[in-house]
Amino acid sequence: MKVSEFGERALVELARRTFKRGPRIKVGIGDDAAAIDIDGRYLIVTTDMLVAGTHFPHGTTAKQMGIKAVIVNLSDIAAMGAAPLALIFSVGLPRELDVDFVRRMIRSMDVTARRYGAYVVGGDLDETDDITIAGAAFGLAKKGQLLTRSGAKPGNVIAVTGQLGAASAGLKILLERLPPKGYEKLIKAQLEPIARVREGMLLAKNGARAAIDLTDGLAANLWQVSRMSKAKLIIDRYKVPIHPLVNKLSERHGFDVEEFAFFSGEDFEMLFTLRRDIWEKVRRALKRIGTDATAIGYVSKGRGVYIQKHGTLEKLPDRGYEHFK
Amino acid sequence: MKVSEFGERALVELARRTFKRGPRIKVGIGDDAAAIDIDGRYLIVTTDMLVAGTHFPHGTTAKQMGIKAVIVNLSDIAAMGAAPLALIFSVGLPRELDVDFVRRMIRSMDVTARRYGAYVVGGDLDETDDITIAGAAFGLAKKGQLLTRSGAKPGNVIAVTGQLGAASAGLKILLERLPPKGYEKLIKAQLEPIARVREGMLLAKNGARAAIDLTDGLAANLWQVSRMSKAKLIIDRYKVPIHPLVNKLSERHGFDVEEFAFFSGEDFEMLFTLRRDIWEKVRRALKRIGTDATAIGYVSKGRGVYIQKHGTLEKLPDRGYEHFK
Repeated sequence: MKVSEFGERALVELARRTFKRGPRIKVGIGDDAAAIDIDGRYLIVTTDMLVAGTHFPHGTTAKQMGIKAVIVNLSDIAAMGAAPLALIFSVGLPRELDVDFVRRMIRSMDVTARRYGAYVVGGDLDETDDITIAGAAFGLAKKGQLLTRSGAKPGNVIAVTGQLGAASAGLKILLERLPPKGYEKLIKAQLEPIARVREGMLLAKNGARAAIDLTDGLAANLWQVSRMSKAKLIIDRYKVPIHPLVNKLSERHGFDVEEFAFFSGEDFEMLFTLRRDIWEKVRRALKRIGTDATAIGYVSKGRGVYIQKHGTLEKLPDRGYEHFK
Repeated sequence: MKVSEFGERALVELARRTFKRGPRIKVGIGDDAAAIDIDGRYLIVTTDMLVAGTHFPHGTTAKQMGIKAVIVNLSDIAAMGAAPLALIFSVGLPRELDVDFVRRMIRSMDVTARRYGAYVVGGDLDETDDITIAGAAFGLAKKGQLLTRSGAKPGNVIAVTGQLGAASAGLKILLERLPPKGYEKLIKAQLEPIARVREGMLLAKNGARAAIDLTDGLAANLWQVSRMSKAKLIIDRYKVPIHPLVNKLSERHGFDVEEFAFFSGEDFEMLFTLRRDIWEKVRRALKRIGTDATAIGYVSKGRGVYIQKHGTLEKLPDRGYEHFK
């Protein structure tokens, strides 16, 4: 069978079954990042590969590529509740590429990494047809304070940081060459995302135990938490915070808001669950560092992801996160 | 200027100047791997990217790709004197690739990693035209026991493990479709290399302070040590241990032995320097774990790499290690 028929989820499952777990491995394949016990704390490691043709819309600048290469990796460190340490990059470059492009790209990597307290410490260079950036990020997490996809418990509040749908709405504007005026924030959300690193650390310290960064879309990411936590997640459709410009863009062009907010990815916001009795305290603590968080539902016994709309409860479709289409 | 004109060495220098060093960063860009101070010890991190068309000779099996992807990364951990912990892989796959190929490749990654006490703990999947494997490896090293490219001191003995030239002679056989009979060991050295992990740890523990793994060829790797250590390296041509089958192959086909042993890479043997008074003890300790090591020269004050041949001393050419040719 071909890789494209087999599908990405089946490949991840194959990898999860193939790779043996060592005694030091607290979290392995299947979460945002892996956690390795190094006496006293956890080393958190993650990798993400970006390929120019696939991951960067046409016209993405060198600076923006540098930002995104750092953010996709740091966002996974954030989703574990860890403090970032460092990044390394294997970079494939076409031989015809201008060196100035590389200069701007790596300067942007440096600036972006340091904004989150991390440093780029090494790399490898190769010749490739398309610009290819495979990054790995490392962080440290305290024992007993790990955020995982499997940590959601019945009774927990489900919450998200920020407002959803902006990054994919920005991508739509770029791909369909819609007039960008007034929607600059959406385009920026797509091309220059931020990672919720401080938020992840705050959540870990203040008692949250489950988190995932919103990279595959709210629906797909909720399903991942449901499966890994063996729990039922119930979402109130009208509590999900949608970026006002996403609403405005959708109204004007007749787009479906839910396509952006539920079924498209790359918002890099934090989806997390925590005990109901600590929710208010955590919400206020996030507010103090300038981040809004919204309760969008609750965890219950059972399996699956359900959404409440106008009093009816229906299953939220899991369209997955396939790269092979 | 194009990347191909600028050259790999200049790109590495550009990266070295661009990326700021954080307070925890003991060793940054320019060595085999980076070393990050995490209280009490060093976290060692490295990344290497392999692209099917460039790095794997035609006919390389899935199993062999898995071996090589693990070994190129663990060899860098070994060259720092660290104990391997874990690996992660970002893998790009063509959509037409057979899933069985992937199954065999990742099984081989798992088996190879565990042979060295390491575990594959995570990854990322993407669609690419050519199979692309970007790996990152992590290890731990004790403080005061790091092996670096900058640790060579005047008076040190220069030594190598094993016998040189086998991997590149094996590649020559494959590329030029020479009769393989009798040379199976050379082909195996190319397609199924080993990493000198136990040797690196032994060297670190027993007082060696400089090492580099032989990936770019003896000459280029000697030059890297000379530059980073700000020292002069003097090599005795007739002490360099050349694989007997490399001599035999070269004699039969009229090849230049030095092309294989000095100017071609991927032997993944350890090149190291250490104080003269501990050399014999270390040589015997390596022997006890089954590894031959040979003194091939010494470190002196000054700069550059020189080779003694029939009583004359000449500069060894540095042909570098360019991927952009």
